[in-house]
Amino acid sequence: MSHQQHPELISATWELDTIVQELRNARNDWRAQRGRSREPGLRELPSRDALQQIIRELCGALFPMRLGPQELREETEDYYVGHTLDAALNELFRQVQLELVYFSRQQNANADEALLKNQANQIVRLFAAALPELRRTLDVDIQAAFQGDPAARSVDEVLLCYPGVLAIIHHRLAHTLYQLGVPLLARIVAELAHSLTGIDIHPGAEIGRGFFIDHGTGVVIGETAVIGERVRIYQAVTLGAKTFPTDDKGHLQKGLPRHPIVEDDVVIYAGATVLGRITIGKGSIIGGNVWLTRSVPPGSSITQASSRQQLPQGADV
Amino acid sequence: MSHQQHPELISATWELDTIVQELRNARNDWRAQRGRSREPGLRELPSRDALQQIIRELCGALFPMRLGPQELREETEDYYVGHTLDAALNELFRQVQLELVYFSRQQNANADEALLKNQANQIVRLFAAALPELRRTLDVDIQAAFQGDPAARSVDEVLLCYPGVLAIIHHRLAHTLYQLGVPLLARIVAELAHSLTGIDIHPGAEIGRGFFIDHGTGVVIGETAVIGERVRIYQAVTLGAKTFPTDDKGHLQKGLPRHPIVEDDVVIYAGATVLGRITIGKGSIIGGNVWLTRSVPPGSSITQASSRQQLPQGADV
Amino acid sequence: MSHQQHPELISATWELDTIVQELRNARNDWRAQRGRSREPGLRELPSRDALQQIIRELCGALFPMRLGPQELREETEDYYVGHTLDAALNELFRQVQLELVYFSRQQNANADEALLKNQANQIVRLFAAALPELRRTLDVDIQAAFQGDPAARSVDEVLLCYPGVLAIIHHRLAHTLYQLGVPLLARIVAELAHSLTGIDIHPGAEIGRGFFIDHGTGVVIGETAVIGERVRIYQAVTLGAKTFPTDDKGHLQKGLPRHPIVEDDVVIYAGATVLGRITIGKGSIIGGNVWLTRSVPPGSSITQASSRQQLPQGADV
Amino acid sequence: MSHQQHPELISATWELDTIVQELRNARNDWRAQRGRSREPGLRELPSRDALQQIIRELCGALFPMRLGPQELREETEDYYVGHTLDAALNELFRQVQLELVYFSRQQNANADEALLKNQANQIVRLFAAALPELRRTLDVDIQAAFQGDPAARSVDEVLLCYPGVLAIIHHRLAHTLYQLGVPLLARIVAELAHSLTGIDIHPGAEIGRGFFIDHGTGVVIGETAVIGERVRIYQAVTLGAKTFPTDDKGHLQKGLPRHPIVEDDVVIYAGATVLGRITIGKGSIIGGNVWLTRSVPPGSSITQASSRQQLPQGADV
Amino acid sequence: MSHQQHPELISATWELDTIVQELRNARNDWRAQRGRSREPGLRELPSRDALQQIIRELCGALFPMRLGPQELREETEDYYVGHTLDAALNELFRQVQLELVYFSRQQNANADEALLKNQANQIVRLFAAALPELRRTLDVDIQAAFQGDPAARSVDEVLLCYPGVLAIIHHRLAHTLYQLGVPLLARIVAELAHSLTGIDIHPGAEIGRGFFIDHGTGVVIGETAVIGERVRIYQAVTLGAKTFPTDDKGHLQKGLPRHPIVEDDVVIYAGATVLGRITIGKGSIIGGNVWLTRSVPPGSSITQASSRQQLPQGADV
Amino acid sequence: MSHQQHPELISATWELDTIVQELRNARNDWRAQRGRSREPGLRELPSRDALQQIIRELCGALFPMRLGPQELREETEDYYVGHTLDAALNELFRQVQLELVYFSRQQNANADEALLKNQANQIVRLFAAALPELRRTLDVDIQAAFQGDPAARSVDEVLLCYPGVLAIIHHRLAHTLYQLGVPLLARIVAELAHSLTGIDIHPGAEIGRGFFIDHGTGVVIGETAVIGERVRIYQAVTLGAKTFPTDDKGHLQKGLPRHPIVEDDVVIYAGATVLGRITIGKGSIIGGNVWLTRSVPPGSSITQASSRQQLPQGADV
Repeated sequence: MSHQQHPELISATWELDTIVQELRNARNDWRAQRGRSREPGLRELPSRDALQQIIRELCGALFPMRLGPQELREETEDYYVGHTLDAALNELFRQVQLELVYFSRQQNANADEALLKNQANQIVRLFAAALPELRRTLDVDIQAAFQGDPAARSVDEVLLCYPGVLAIIHHRLAHTLYQLGVPLLARIVAELAHSLTGIDIHPGAEIGRGFFIDHGTGVVIGETAVIGERVRIYQAVTLGAKTFPTDDKGHLQKGLPRHPIVEDDVVIYAGATVLGRITIGKGSIIGGNVWLTRSVPPGSSITQASSRQQLPQGADV
Repeated sequence: MSHQQHPELISATWELDTIVQELRNARNDWRAQRGRSREPGLRELPSRDALQQIIRELCGALFPMRLGPQELREETEDYYVGHTLDAALNELFRQVQLELVYFSRQQNANADEALLKNQANQIVRLFAAALPELRRTLDVDIQAAFQGDPAARSVDEVLLCYPGVLAIIHHRLAHTLYQLGVPLLARIVAELAHSLTGIDIHPGAEIGRGFFIDHGTGVVIGETAVIGERVRIYQAVTLGAKTFPTDDKGHLQKGLPRHPIVEDDVVIYAGATVLGRITIGKGSIIGGNVWLTRSVPPGSSITQASSRQQLPQGADV
Repeated sequence: MSHQQHPELISATWELDTIVQELRNARNDWRAQRGRSREPGLRELPSRDALQQIIRELCGALFPMRLGPQELREETEDYYVGHTLDAALNELFRQVQLELVYFSRQQNANADEALLKNQANQIVRLFAAALPELRRTLDVDIQAAFQGDPAARSVDEVLLCYPGVLAIIHHRLAHTLYQLGVPLLARIVAELAHSLTGIDIHPGAEIGRGFFIDHGTGVVIGETAVIGERVRIYQAVTLGAKTFPTDDKGHLQKGLPRHPIVEDDVVIYAGATVLGRITIGKGSIIGGNVWLTRSVPPGSSITQASSRQQLPQGADV
Repeated sequence: MSHQQHPELISATWELDTIVQELRNARNDWRAQRGRSREPGLRELPSRDALQQIIRELCGALFPMRLGPQELREETEDYYVGHTLDAALNELFRQVQLELVYFSRQQNANADEALLKNQANQIVRLFAAALPELRRTLDVDIQAAFQGDPAARSVDEVLLCYPGVLAIIHHRLAHTLYQLGVPLLARIVAELAHSLTGIDIHPGAEIGRGFFIDHGTGVVIGETAVIGERVRIYQAVTLGAKTFPTDDKGHLQKGLPRHPIVEDDVVIYAGATVLGRITIGKGSIIGGNVWLTRSVPPGSSITQASSRQQLPQGADV
Repeated sequence: MSHQQHPELISATWELDTIVQELRNARNDWRAQRGRSREPGLRELPSRDALQQIIRELCGALFPMRLGPQELREETEDYYVGHTLDAALNELFRQVQLELVYFSRQQNANADEALLKNQANQIVRLFAAALPELRRTLDVDIQAAFQGDPAARSVDEVLLCYPGVLAIIHHRLAHTLYQLGVPLLARIVAELAHSLTGIDIHPGAEIGRGFFIDHGTGVVIGETAVIGERVRIYQAVTLGAKTFPTDDKGHLQKGLPRHPIVEDDVVIYAGATVLGRITIGKGSIIGGNVWLTRSVPPGSSITQASSRQQLPQGADV
Repeated sequence: MSHQQHPELISATWELDTIVQELRNARNDWRAQRGRSREPGLRELPSRDALQQIIRELCGALFPMRLGPQELREETEDYYVGHTLDAALNELFRQVQLELVYFSRQQNANADEALLKNQANQIVRLFAAALPELRRTLDVDIQAAFQGDPAARSVDEVLLCYPGVLAIIHHRLAHTLYQLGVPLLARIVAELAHSLTGIDIHPGAEIGRGFFIDHGTGVVIGETAVIGERVRIYQAVTLGAKTFPTDDKGHLQKGLPRHPIVEDDVVIYAGATVLGRITIGKGSIIGGNVWLTRSVPPGSSITQASSRQQLPQGADV
């Protein structure tokens, strides 16, 4: 048979019309089920790719001679900083509008477009104004990272290489967005860092200056965690919630404080798990792999051995 | 000396001819050792970059208004879906052929090219036909993620941001490829998700609807694991093998069931390690950091404390 | 009011001049504080993007028919290898110079440019010369990975997919750079692997042939670790330091041996933590989640149960 | 002197601040001179790059199997056509708005934004609706090109290669835009063709079906030219204006008919110059290099020799 | 009305379904008219973009240190040349197959795929083998260009800048393809040069060594032109056909010799038009703007004045 | 035969080793013939691609709101201008060095690298300083173009679309480079314009303000041409050399004035040819297709008819 001899002529077709139609059915069912009527508008969600580009530009604008383009000279830093900020903020303005429109539609609010635009404008303006102080805070973080790692050779190496530093830069930008009322953008920025570093910090977490995460893979810090100044943590540390409070109808109650408070100068070693709205007192040291679900006073030193003695006392995790 | 004055003229040469020759020797030795004769054919392996592009396109085709291009409108979704699917499936067809030819050569089979092409055609056709149902399953997964996380604000945020959702999209595509007989492509897709999310699910694992992984970094799910519906797991959970059975000659026996069975509605908290072909009964809750190597009945609630009591009873891991 | 009707005409301005000026102030303060005078030179740091490209090219040159371009044929491998190596080494030469100039300025050394160029030339030449042997070592690693994983179907799948293999390729390149005196480039390469795989190996670590990491997310291997031949480790294993020795003034002492020695044929299962300059004797097996801070003799088999019996004996972590 | 030894350290600065300031002065002077006040708006002009992309996409949508992507199959043409048209029309919508806003501002009109948007919408809608008929007309042009060139081997070669065909595709698109009231976009499209082919057709020119330009470099066809059906012209032919009428004050009068009318079935050979609002009668043949400034009746055959006899009769060029 | 207030919400839809359907109708009508049945195959035409890339690579392979990458060193030229040639020839192989299949289908030939592949292989092999001699010929052309232009400063400037040189490189490659039986590819290459330079040389033209075109815009050289060695021509010169012979039925007769023969050492100045199968004898000089339709003996010097005297003698153009 | 059944397995090899070797032979022969010894240095020629990018950036910096990025606002123009200029001048600095080194080697000069670098620095500095005045001159050119074309609707359309404006922008940049002693870069810039517009202006030509070329294809302006203010020319006009003076040995004498002087306010219509070091007096009008080889006084009006009467008087072209 000739098919045998001319394999390239075998028709390679995928019955695309059927599949396209069935995919449409699946979308329509899902929209019907979620009460989404068919609207004529454009896609309404912010874009992960756009945020990635914005963050890249903001990193360059914050640290021009170290994260900016290779060819930059100090003489012309300001042109680069100004032009790059302008591009980043213009795109951020667009993404902020997308999020505002999106949540406005989610709530079936009859949003006034001009109003949303004004609101987006205000958000970006405040975000931009926060950048200089944010840079100063990051300088303290970087200095802390340099001092905390015996393998670090220079403060610039730390900025260029350390995933913990990358994570805290992302977090401080994400947290600013979170505070300004665009939590979806904030979350996307946080997940960009998570993907790059394995460090998962919810943008809601409040973190003081001089914060340093070493190695970092597997670190999880929850939405309502509060962390003081000069705190240092290692890989695989969890600052999590112990339980998820539900209301009378069994629905999760969102937004309640449910993650730890870590006071100034605390160190938490690798693999430690700290759960619930407890407080770790100033200057405490939490040992590797420790499992901690109750508050400890300032100056405590908790090890696996000491923490294990808690367990028979009825801790149910 | 003039070298001092003209540093740019210093010859910068790497004795490339020698190194190229020695690299060839290394390749030849390796080929000889593995019995690979020098063949004239093209490179025979699938491409990670090509798979990455395919997955990106499939994500757009499955969720056009949320993972597709920014400019899309519902009016024209089908054109985008059809055209993007076509591109993705054509390239997948090429990659499937590469894998079939590769394994055929591995087994020194005298593969008939037309036959392999027909087989590849059939695989892609079945893969395409599975997409609509796969989308419906993912809708259930996304809904589960939304309901399972108190910090989630909308079902779209979950799709856009959550690494656990990214991982399950990749897994359901990879698992379909795995079932259709292209395990190498399946594995590449799984590793793309692993690299992005830190979540490592073997494409062979069978996972029911409504599956949700929160945070996710460090999760490992083995090849023969079987997971029911509405299961929820957290970061750093391992569903692994306890031992690798070997045959008489000490060779690993491949393909034997060796990973856990997790029944419907189970929750497994962060850091738990579940090893071996054991069964976790329906509705059980496995606490954080629990180490589990024996089956537990439905409705069990296992904590570190309770699990630790097992240990003196001789469990050797 | 007309604003309602013309939302697009709302001026979207960010008071950029002010922010650019304040960012400059922040930079100037930081430079003053660190004693960095305003110099006219170009940006002096190596580039992460450039290193990423170099590594990609080196991977292609080392494994042309498997990690090189799709169209390659054995007949023309050498042209590809030679041309790709040439491009990679030229760019590496540039990056090496950047690091040498950078550290020379850090030490306020009045570096002679021609001298640095000669030194960079020598480093790249030695690096290039090391590649053939490095390829042979990687062949042994890949073979070990294939034999160690019951799910692996072929030695090529292992090279193409396994994060542990990706990590060891990066490490062997990074370690070579580290030994040749460019630790910053080495660290960047190590962090590229860390970001892709979740495996964090300090470029200083010495690792023997036939090394295999399975799954890998969360693995941390410290700067002064020494690992023998045919060692196998699993995800979330830490080979870390127990304490950071400080000198009289409380400054961290850098460079002292402080990480474990792992002898030949050791297996370390997932989640095990091994801390301090201890020795794990040849052929030992360290069980999952074991916490180990003292040396064990050859042939030991350590489990959670046995290790836990150590704890009351006063181990303070 | 040390500069001799370290040439790379020579400061390479361009006194950028001064130049940036002087360029600003030049811009301000120009704006003042043209009465352009400093406005806060975005750049208001359409983009040549955007138009180039639009045209490329329209060519693909018009001739999918010949100018579309390599991988297209007839089975899936419509998806490609629909998706590509959608992208092209969305971008065209943006460019049309830019032109409307621009001309509205030029006329100091207090344009209502919603009105302009509606107008742009209408223009794009009409443009889109004109495409099917435009394709049919181009099919006639292509057929004419094939029949008119003894070197042509197939109708597809003509579409793929011939600059005259490229020029007429551009012209028919540009002319449609011109008629719909966006002459600036039309002109940009015309100049894209001019740059690619050396053929300069003003978008205002009216050209009948079956038009063919061979070789084409140097052809110029003016704004008010009217060309019948089945006309064929060769390289370096000019259909130009003889004089530019001015009004009482010496200003050029724009828009008056001032270019030739060429009736059906005329052939004009290379280098011929036809000037003024004259008529070349149906079926005439104008020889190479002929200089013609008066009407000729149907069926005329004009050569250099015959045309030259006109000259003493007072032709003033 | 709310539309006034929310202009962005105005639905911007183009009734795409209708237009897509009408475009399909137009295509179907055209296909029916041309007897093209609906076939399932892929797009069958070569790609202009692919050819452009091939030519770019061939230019680099022919002149590596001048048209190749900036970083090339002579030490490693061969690797670059070999690798680049390999890529270019592989892609050319694909394009040659496309043309062969295309013409085979045009002729309704029942082409054997393996046969066409063998034929394509042979064509590319011969093309590759012709490259070294082609390079030697181009060296002579470049030398001629350098000697012929008083403004040229070096032989390398000529290669890098002169459109006449760009055109002859393209032509010699196109002519080789033409001779090997792939006239469509040859024509595409010729049109690439035409678009870049305004010089339009049919790939069938035979041109001897040491050929130089100065300025070049508007030059047209026809399919059956034959040009000797060391010929020099200027912008806007036409070597064209005088008449197109038709057969009994009025169809154009293709392939007959109908363009001039230009013997060795002839110079033709700008704007000259030479038409028909005439011979310009060795060493002749044809002045600017001369119109020539009859042969001239060796050593002739033709000016406008002398040529004009021919005209009354009945020259019909 | 099995070949029939497996066409893809037909070995497609091009005997690359042989061809690479023969191409090397051709290069070596050419180098030997031109006395170029085998040097270890990098490729020494400037890059056309780099110049293209530089010009694109300079156009943006000169006309930021019209040729710069779409998103630009006047508020942030200076950042864009400064950053873009910086990038363009840095790259220009590199290209200038390449040309200086190249010509220095051409003359076998033992160039001091630091000296060349200083010289390059000086050239770029002067070039940058000339930009503001160049912009003012271009504003006059653009105004002239607007006033000279009855079809022009606005001064911005002229800047955006007109090939004559594109050509004069390129020329004024190229001429500045030419005057500063980098004629090769200047020539590349001129040829970029030539390729885009079909207008060929030698960078040596001196052209006054308010210059306008309409349509432009085929215009040629020679190296030593001198053009006054407010001159207007049309397509296919040549301002060329009549003869190339040679010295005693028959070598072309380079650099002698050999092209026309065109005084202020002259208009030259399409196709006119003006040859030799003649002067066209102020305010003259040269008609279409006129052939002119002798000076004409101010206020002349030359037509084909009048010019033709010159011919019998012995003009030999």
